[in-house]
Amino acid sequence: MNVQGKHYRSAWWDESEAALRIVDQTALPHDFRVVSLRSVAEVCDAIRTMRVRGAPLIGVVAAYGLALALRQDPGAEEPAVRDLLATRPTAVNLRWALGRIRSAIAGAPPSERAARALACAHRLADEDVEVCHAIGAHGLTVTREIWNRRAAGKERLDILTHCNAGWLATVDWGTALSCVYQTHDAGIPVHVWVDETRPRSQGARLTAWELGQHGVPHTLVSDSSAGHLLQRGLVDLCLVGSDRTTAAGDVCNKIGTYPLALAAADNRVPFYVALPYSSIDWEIQDALAEIPIERRDGSEVTHVLGRSADGAEHTVAISPPATQAVNFAFDVTPARYVTALITERGVFPVNAEGLAELARARS
Amino acid sequence: MNVQGKHYRSAWWDESEAALRIVDQTALPHDFRVVSLRSVAEVCDAIRTMRVRGAPLIGVVAAYGLALALRQDPGAEEPAVRDLLATRPTAVNLRWALGRIRSAIAGAPPSERAARALACAHRLADEDVEVCHAIGAHGLTVTREIWNRRAAGKERLDILTHCNAGWLATVDWGTALSCVYQTHDAGIPVHVWVDETRPRSQGARLTAWELGQHGVPHTLVSDSSAGHLLQRGLVDLCLVGSDRTTAAGDVCNKIGTYPLALAAADNRVPFYVALPYSSIDWEIQDALAEIPIERRDGSEVTHVLGRSADGAEHTVAISPPATQAVNFAFDVTPARYVTALITERGVFPVNAEGLAELARARS
Repeated sequence: MNVQGKHYRSAWWDESEAALRIVDQTALPHDFRVVSLRSVAEVCDAIRTMRVRGAPLIGVVAAYGLALALRQDPGAEEPAVRDLLATRPTAVNLRWALGRIRSAIAGAPPSERAARALACAHRLADEDVEVCHAIGAHGLTVTREIWNRRAAGKERLDILTHCNAGWLATVDWGTALSCVYQTHDAGIPVHVWVDETRPRSQGARLTAWELGQHGVPHTLVSDSSAGHLLQRGLVDLCLVGSDRTTAAGDVCNKIGTYPLALAAADNRVPFYVALPYSSIDWEIQDALAEIPIERRDGSEVTHVLGRSADGAEHTVAISPPATQAVNFAFDVTPARYVTALITERGVFPVNAEGLAELARARS
Repeated sequence: MNVQGKHYRSAWWDESEAALRIVDQTALPHDFRVVSLRSVAEVCDAIRTMRVRGAPLIGVVAAYGLALALRQDPGAEEPAVRDLLATRPTAVNLRWALGRIRSAIAGAPPSERAARALACAHRLADEDVEVCHAIGAHGLTVTREIWNRRAAGKERLDILTHCNAGWLATVDWGTALSCVYQTHDAGIPVHVWVDETRPRSQGARLTAWELGQHGVPHTLVSDSSAGHLLQRGLVDLCLVGSDRTTAAGDVCNKIGTYPLALAAADNRVPFYVALPYSSIDWEIQDALAEIPIERRDGSEVTHVLGRSADGAEHTVAISPPATQAVNFAFDVTPARYVTALITERGVFPVNAEGLAELARARS
């Protein structure tokens, strides 16, 4: 993806530094800062503090983290995997990506483990780019169909998204936003309603910034506005990412996705989820009971980080000093409110037939 | 209501100053600041900038504003009413309260108009206190019944509220929070989930502060969390205020109320609206088409005001400098998602029978 005209990935290996370079997402949108991660401890910290975030990207970065651990100590597999898995409990890609690395090094002599892990991490990164591009291509078939149906009476295609499912959440392209970028690039006049996505405001900070860099028209709204926009006919489709999706079509994603899906359903606006096939969890029967919902620190709710007019960064308290907050990071949208899943293997309607097709696509 | 042990109203007349004294709500929760309004222009400015806000309080403050205008110029009725009505288009109490003043001065000689208007404003303020106390007493019958039904298995009664429908939104007691205070004072162990209520964060700033002053246990959550809390059985009832309610039971209230009601309905949690009878608009047939939805400045979404650790106030930007935001202040919750209206004249279920009863209570 382009940043002021230069192509970037959100994370890449720098052999001369023997480090993983990442775009520090906590500095955006005010600063574009690239930092180096040189150890598994630094990788764990970057994931935990959300300098990197987004289910697909976390998987790739964790894979590099395991490779870094093995460069330091070829016997470090078990503790490194344990530490990496503990950073964020909800996304399933983390487990999946580490599994890929572990398969790649299984049975290898200690002297070859680090190199094999690193080569596998590179493959995962490149695959993620391909996967995300393919998700966007399938998404374009969806948006084009909706646009063609409505084009007569409307000047633009209005997509509402929540959180950031853009290139910053992946290695490149994004999931939901890959669909948006390819729709825009195909000449369909798309406009995106960007949910702020409190408490960390990934919509306001990251999605608005990404769309701005790509030149996609967009408007920021508070999370609470989505219902109103849907009710007034101002949205043609909702399009979000997912941290973990069950084979039944239940979608675990950023907190606030579930009420958004309810509002879409109440107004008969289609609700699409774009995701890599690797984020489908085939083992879970009951999403509400079995997906662990990460609870982050309450200070993310009581405090906001931003930049004042003089250019200085400040973390400011909104609520009274004594106020306690709880901060659930994800929620579960039941399958009945999801129109279809957009993956790199195709678009699967969330109904009996579509889900059977989804399962068949596994092999 | 008590502030550090001292009783306050949110607005009161000070004869020695010939001014309306108000609690400046833009300074809360960090500073408790009382300011004087000495002219209708100052009153308009205070309403527009939300130093006073909340449908019932706006009505009373506007009434004092008209009285202040008439003290300066007994012929100023028309321009003063026009300016006051233009400050906030959605709430209906403003129109209602000004109508009360206009009736009180109709036919009075110019020399008596200001005094009559002021006396009427005093009556409106005192009536608001009585009305809000009665709303809370009726609300207590609702909360007590829910608590008695569930008490065996639960340690507390969990109420979720949105925005601030507390004493700060009225002259004293509040509407939704009057029910909470009287429930708490009756010895029912109530706990309140406080929605932050972006963009102005009246939940985080005002409701959390009010509840803290009264000693009611509460927890702040992002607006997006409400669906998750409801889905997980962590809420026994939702309870919000209203800026305008139709005779059919459609409720216009702070943006985000509609998706909250959808999530309550999806999880079969009752959704109550507490309101003064004066905020019912009997003239409107179609709430979605006919209630004007105020659009406030987008900077309320892109920027946040708060206090940094060193005690200084900062307004910080969250989104990229070029990002535009739209800021709808209210939404409409269709009657089918509202369980009942709690008013000073009783609790009216939103069904054919309850709404017929509501209309009968008018006379």
